Amino acid sequence: MSSSVSFHDRYLEFLDQYKRIAALRQIGGILSWDQETMMPAKGAPARAEQMGALEYVVHGLETSPAYAETVNQLIEQAEGQNAPPDIRRSLDLAKRSLERANKVPAHLAAALAKETAQGQVTWAKARAAKRFEDFAPTLKRIIALKREEADALRQPDQRRYDILLNDFEPGMTGATLRPLLESMRGPLTDLRQKIAQAQISAPELSAPELKGRFKHKQQMNLARQVAKALSYDFEAGRLDLSVHPFSSGTGGDARITTRVDEKDPMGCLYSTIHEIGHALYEQGLPDDAAMQPIGHHVSMGIHESQSRLWENQVGRSRAFCRWLQPCASKAFGDFGVKDADALYQAVNRVKTDYIRTEADEVHYNLHVLLRYELEEDLIEGKLEVDDLETAWNQAFLRDFGLAVPDPSQGVLQDVHWSCGLFGYFPTYSLGNIYSAQLFKRMKQDLPNLDDGLSRGDCKAALGWLRERVHQKGRRRDAPELMQDAVGESVSTQPMLDYLSAKYAELYRL
Amino acid sequence: MSSSVSFHDRYLEFLDQYKRIAALRQIGGILSWDQETMMPAKGAPARAEQMGALEYVVHGLETSPAYAETVNQLIEQAEGQNAPPDIRRSLDLAKRSLERANKVPAHLAAALAKETAQGQVTWAKARAAKRFEDFAPTLKRIIALKREEADALRQPDQRRYDILLNDFEPGMTGATLRPLLESMRGPLTDLRQKIAQAQISAPELSAPELKGRFKHKQQMNLARQVAKALSYDFEAGRLDLSVHPFSSGTGGDARITTRVDEKDPMGCLYSTIHEIGHALYEQGLPDDAAMQPIGHHVSMGIHESQSRLWENQVGRSRAFCRWLQPCASKAFGDFGVKDADALYQAVNRVKTDYIRTEADEVHYNLHVLLRYELEEDLIEGKLEVDDLETAWNQAFLRDFGLAVPDPSQGVLQDVHWSCGLFGYFPTYSLGNIYSAQLFKRMKQDLPNLDDGLSRGDCKAALGWLRERVHQKGRRRDAPELMQDAVGESVSTQPMLDYLSAKYAELYRL
Repeated sequence: MSSSVSFHDRYLEFLDQYKRIAALRQIGGILSWDQETMMPAKGAPARAEQMGALEYVVHGLETSPAYAETVNQLIEQAEGQNAPPDIRRSLDLAKRSLERANKVPAHLAAALAKETAQGQVTWAKARAAKRFEDFAPTLKRIIALKREEADALRQPDQRRYDILLNDFEPGMTGATLRPLLESMRGPLTDLRQKIAQAQISAPELSAPELKGRFKHKQQMNLARQVAKALSYDFEAGRLDLSVHPFSSGTGGDARITTRVDEKDPMGCLYSTIHEIGHALYEQGLPDDAAMQPIGHHVSMGIHESQSRLWENQVGRSRAFCRWLQPCASKAFGDFGVKDADALYQAVNRVKTDYIRTEADEVHYNLHVLLRYELEEDLIEGKLEVDDLETAWNQAFLRDFGLAVPDPSQGVLQDVHWSCGLFGYFPTYSLGNIYSAQLFKRMKQDLPNLDDGLSRGDCKAALGWLRERVHQKGRRRDAPELMQDAVGESVSTQPMLDYLSAKYAELYRL
Repeated sequence: MSSSVSFHDRYLEFLDQYKRIAALRQIGGILSWDQETMMPAKGAPARAEQMGALEYVVHGLETSPAYAETVNQLIEQAEGQNAPPDIRRSLDLAKRSLERANKVPAHLAAALAKETAQGQVTWAKARAAKRFEDFAPTLKRIIALKREEADALRQPDQRRYDILLNDFEPGMTGATLRPLLESMRGPLTDLRQKIAQAQISAPELSAPELKGRFKHKQQMNLARQVAKALSYDFEAGRLDLSVHPFSSGTGGDARITTRVDEKDPMGCLYSTIHEIGHALYEQGLPDDAAMQPIGHHVSMGIHESQSRLWENQVGRSRAFCRWLQPCASKAFGDFGVKDADALYQAVNRVKTDYIRTEADEVHYNLHVLLRYELEEDLIEGKLEVDDLETAWNQAFLRDFGLAVPDPSQGVLQDVHWSCGLFGYFPTYSLGNIYSAQLFKRMKQDLPNLDDGLSRGDCKAALGWLRERVHQKGRRRDAPELMQDAVGESVSTQPMLDYLSAKYAELYRL
């Protein structure tokens, strides 16, 4: 009995320490949000000092020997105590995180922080100048440091790239991922070509052109109206503007941003829906596990599945367009989209183009696949930075049938590598794959789903996600969470089926 | 030579540690700003955890034995090294702060944090219910803890109240403060009574009544216009709304808030000017000492001198009203204030009333004096909480000639005591005293000051303050800073002279 009390007390003590680390990490999120939305320009130098100080204390807490001892002893005792699964899982997750923090030497973490902070500046300049060679030396240093980081973290039999992937998608291995992603290339390039052919042979199927003026205020009003329809809780979040839309925070404080282009209201609208998808996940995580290891989101892929499900499977569905079109007409007057069918066509326009972030559902994963293969080869030493631009352009011509005009529309378009984010790109595709699996199952479970969506009533869809995904917290890694939620292992088939069916109908393929 | 290098390196190491603490404290300021302006309601519980975690790590850094050893050894070595005054001062200031942190036991700091967090809630409810007895038990506990805190900090020959005062006005002692503040009572009650008599015998001298509608947007536009006239740098700050106006942050990120009442534009206007006064000080602190001990503001009194100087000596001057009246007319149309003289009368209206925060310049210090004497007696054990309400009401009748109708307009009106802020009130009066001394000297040095102010050009005044106050940072404590800036020691005479002259002219006394 006394040892049981002691385990329990010790576990509560561990939770206190963990919560402190989690709370400090949340502060980092608030500072980043503030930086992108509110901070005056001259606040930047002090903000860098603040972020550095925060990193320092978080690292100090997470690598404290006493904390590691607490966690290790609890894990040992948990066996004998027959501790409940949530407690075992919490301890395992904490151990994962502290081991990672302990294995990466402080000088390496500092070098990475410095190189990537400067790297983003260098990248932005190189992109503006359209000169990959201006960014290449920085990228070489970042890759060398990421390889060093992977070496610090991996077992001898593990591949470096798998280790980096693990930061964003725990439990997913390269062995599973590579065939999964590569199997999409054939079907997606086929579909892309069929649609292009159909667009040439039947121009009447093309989406209508948007016309009119889309005032800032009306766009923001519509964004808020859509947010409310999606049950985004404004008492547990807020909507602001930033250059690049993002979501930030969790639980009772999950904020989103959007952007407004007065020539095109679709950017604001679908960015908002995408970020709401992220924020609904964070708002729906289990309250009683807030700031506990099992209270966080599962992975970047699962996070992206939520944003993409709302953006695409819901937001770009025919049913939802029935509700959305009159709302948009009320906001903007006649904007060249006369009815729900026309809006459905407009928001599902397919066009082969250079930029990932503007890609339609058919092209999006081809963009990701290209980056994934290149970055894996860079990390595994199969591709040199000096050959990267050529490799990108060749792959782009092969997959998209277009010659890249300059590196700002090619190898320099994404910020990720300059931030040291290797292993992140594939989670975008995993998000799409998961979202299609989830939506397929959701439709089976909710036969009247479309009725609700066509009235702007999304409560059933949200309720389903709350139960199957959000409320689970981080009790399982992504592959197991998906298995539990949809009853099958991770598969690209539902996504390919969804795309084939959707575009076959749209373009009469 | 080698020991000199070692001192220098060691000092840089100290600065790094100090900067980390300073940066984390700045983060606390940003979180508070966010909480009052941006945070959604449901973010409150997580915010409390975040603030607690931040306190914990700051306390840990400041009380680390290694940090104390670094500071102590540097102070010892500084003697032999003949180190420059800025370095000696920096070390002394750091030592002050770390000693304070070390002397207060963790359990006491935690008890105070908990009691005052709950205390604010209890106070707000008691004020709404107009029942002092609902707040009294909490106040007793807070006072007991503050006495305990003072005991932990004081030498046997020091008074408890002086120690608490020291947190807000270092270098100021009770022995100097008490006669200074008490000497104002006679002249101020005299002046108050003379003005009241004049208002009865010559009603034509009364200020005009404001008329019209004062729309939110126009008030905010005018606030921004005034902010620009005062040279507030919007690239190093921002203006937002909050229930109670405040300023927050420093250097390149010094933000202010204001409030808007559509019936009365003067609240927004003069709150904005007041907060800009605070923010101009923070924006003007020496860049090259940012996050260093000598780079902070000097004291709450000096801070308040800046806000009050801009609010009253500048903002309520006849010269500034000449510029302001046309701006206000342009914003609001005819609002019952036909010219600069009428505006000057309107913004200098004198009226005996209950609430400190709404008091005119004549009554303001009488409000502070009353609180100061009561709180000193509470801390020194000369007054019991059970007798506080009666003591307040008696003092109010004596000084203001009015019977307090209920405690929400009396002893419960200010939040300070519920936050444990004992020793803070006198800094409001010190601010007024300092501001009059500074302004007197400024006018001597800048004979054409009024010409500029009457065109809304405040650059000369700001330049003078930058040089004499802002750019000095915290190189000296308030009494010495004032001596250097104005060439005389702290005195109430300039303030009393300023008030006598101003109101004698306004009311033909």
